[in-house]
Amino acid sequence: MSLDTKILTIDLGTRAYDVYIGSGLIYRFADFLPFESEGNSFFIVCDDNTRAYAEIVRNTLRADGASKAEMITLTPGEASKSWESAQRLLEWLVQQKVERSSCIIAVGGGVIGDISGFCAAVILRGIAYVQIPTTLLAQVDSSVGGKTGLNMGQTKNMVGAFHQPVAVIADLDALKNLPRRQLLAGYAEIVKIALLGDAPFFRWLETHASAMLEGDWVAMAQAIETAVRAKARIVEADEREQGGRALLNLGHTFAHALETATGFDGRLLHGEAVAIGMVLAFDLSVRLGLCTAEDQHRVEEHLSAMGLPIRIAMIDPPLKISPQEILALMRHDKKVENGSLRLILPSAMGVAHVADDVDEAQIINVLKDSLGSEYSGKDIKNQWKSVFFSR
Amino acid sequence: MSLDTKILTIDLGTRAYDVYIGSGLIYRFADFLPFESEGNSFFIVCDDNTRAYAEIVRNTLRADGASKAEMITLTPGEASKSWESAQRLLEWLVQQKVERSSCIIAVGGGVIGDISGFCAAVILRGIAYVQIPTTLLAQVDSSVGGKTGLNMGQTKNMVGAFHQPVAVIADLDALKNLPRRQLLAGYAEIVKIALLGDAPFFRWLETHASAMLEGDWVAMAQAIETAVRAKARIVEADEREQGGRALLNLGHTFAHALETATGFDGRLLHGEAVAIGMVLAFDLSVRLGLCTAEDQHRVEEHLSAMGLPIRIAMIDPPLKISPQEILALMRHDKKVENGSLRLILPSAMGVAHVADDVDEAQIINVLKDSLGSEYSGKDIKNQWKSVFFSR
Repeated sequence: MSLDTKILTIDLGTRAYDVYIGSGLIYRFADFLPFESEGNSFFIVCDDNTRAYAEIVRNTLRADGASKAEMITLTPGEASKSWESAQRLLEWLVQQKVERSSCIIAVGGGVIGDISGFCAAVILRGIAYVQIPTTLLAQVDSSVGGKTGLNMGQTKNMVGAFHQPVAVIADLDALKNLPRRQLLAGYAEIVKIALLGDAPFFRWLETHASAMLEGDWVAMAQAIETAVRAKARIVEADEREQGGRALLNLGHTFAHALETATGFDGRLLHGEAVAIGMVLAFDLSVRLGLCTAEDQHRVEEHLSAMGLPIRIAMIDPPLKISPQEILALMRHDKKVENGSLRLILPSAMGVAHVADDVDEAQIINVLKDSLGSEYSGKDIKNQWKSVFFSR
Repeated sequence: MSLDTKILTIDLGTRAYDVYIGSGLIYRFADFLPFESEGNSFFIVCDDNTRAYAEIVRNTLRADGASKAEMITLTPGEASKSWESAQRLLEWLVQQKVERSSCIIAVGGGVIGDISGFCAAVILRGIAYVQIPTTLLAQVDSSVGGKTGLNMGQTKNMVGAFHQPVAVIADLDALKNLPRRQLLAGYAEIVKIALLGDAPFFRWLETHASAMLEGDWVAMAQAIETAVRAKARIVEADEREQGGRALLNLGHTFAHALETATGFDGRLLHGEAVAIGMVLAFDLSVRLGLCTAEDQHRVEEHLSAMGLPIRIAMIDPPLKISPQEILALMRHDKKVENGSLRLILPSAMGVAHVADDVDEAQIINVLKDSLGSEYSGKDIKNQWKSVFFSR
């Protein structure tokens, strides 16, 4: 594979940085740092899945004359986004004599990026960090924009900070070893970007996504670039989510509730939850007269064809939960204001808006239908699993 | 006592806020909030010493129609600035269904302000908080400027965030119940502000401090206002301590090492440690030929006359520690860069600068003399204790 390296600037004034998208970047990552390796100290955070990758980073830094290049390996999975594991990481940094001029390098998916970014935000009241995202989800979404976070209680990302990285290095080669399920979960966030702001991109995805997920890396690079560029414009306009950045949460209030309901046991990856959540948001919009049933159908059709789940009933083993319980979990989400749920609703293909006073009876109705026969009388075949396992 | 309320604006653009200094402010604090009490939710953090004060705040908010006004009481003392107690506070906020529009109110000294501010910085990636400082130290120093922090390992404020409050309400009445020792410790930070940038203010303090500490509240209000105004100008010029704000650390690298050496057992309040630290900084400056022995003498004279300690040997019971061990603790401080200590050194009365390459042999020498006979042959009488207990 030979791909030109794309460079996108996230233009946030004094906090501006570049996102590099390309192939083989891990071997040249030091070229993309905004400072010399020589004489500086680096702390690399990875998990068991990205250890080999992180070792390349460490060895390069040592060869380049870094005064320090140390590595810590966390357990893969959502459980590492906890207060306790942040403490472990911070205590390690203190033992390693972290300084204000030190740099943290996150090598991994969303969990590693989020916890590393949070620790970079609070150690010594904030030091530099670099994101080297190794999953599609992290490359198109979580590594860009400076949101960092930990889970607490029943709520995802309850604790966190806005802290921008100094560089994001998205190496497509890292995606080649990803299980298809992980790749698909990341793809859901690409679809989200299209649905909330770019109808032509959604059309492009309808045509190219199959080839892209089967190994067309030129198409993949183009999709990642388009998604990151769109996210960059949204973040630039509203870095701290006081307005338009909230649109990036399309499907996410539903998704976080479903993830919490599974207890993060692996039944549902974040991107899969987002796929179901986006379909729920479209369904709700249709019922509220905000968008057409055709739009909803097109979204369901595409997600389903790609192999993503589109109904709560498709989660396997099934969630034992009532619509009312899901609504209660949604109320725990961060986006609650004066007790009122804040949802992102599509108003057409490629257009979404923030809705504050959604009729809860309608939310219950869409949840009932998505939960299937027990609540709605509709029989939903668990087609997702069969699609997933057939590949 | 009748005092006009002074209002100082900390001009930080979108993060600007006002500091109110006056008498009886606690009963009118709601007038100083930048938003209505009615319909909003408030979470009040206090310790056992400030509980009665915090109850006034809670009852006022409830009477004013706040949708929620809940209170948590922490254990007084430095131990509450820990990762574990931050967790306790954050979990409480989650249980209480904190929202992005909620406001945290810190009622207490530096510890309560620092931990409340840190939790406000990270819960939901940052919500509003108000400082109601109840010690002189907090009123003149820690409540203003947005530095929040927790201790970790052997290092003070190793973890933290820059997060500005939305208002600071400094009620002089709160100082009336303070033990004189607490008042004096806060007074050391007032002296610091004079020494690092305002020679006429130091002269004013030499004349008025005795009366002020004996109950001249008009003088006290004036000193607090002058100190806060000076700090405001420094913070406005360098909010995130990338330059001149470091001057506020005059005496602090020494002080943090001494505090750590006591194990925070109460032998040494932060302001007392700062008094010793400032004298050490002056002594070092004299030896390096940066300022005159007359300046050093004047500073020692004044601090000592007020009843503050000026030598390590005055700590009682004595610290069992060598100069080399203190230097090692200083190296643990946050202000180390590429392994090199960064100290603030006075170059004249009211002028200080950042020094990066201080001769360590000279640091050892000033520590030896301050430690007294065992290291320097000089016999230092423990005058501090007698001054302190005679009042």
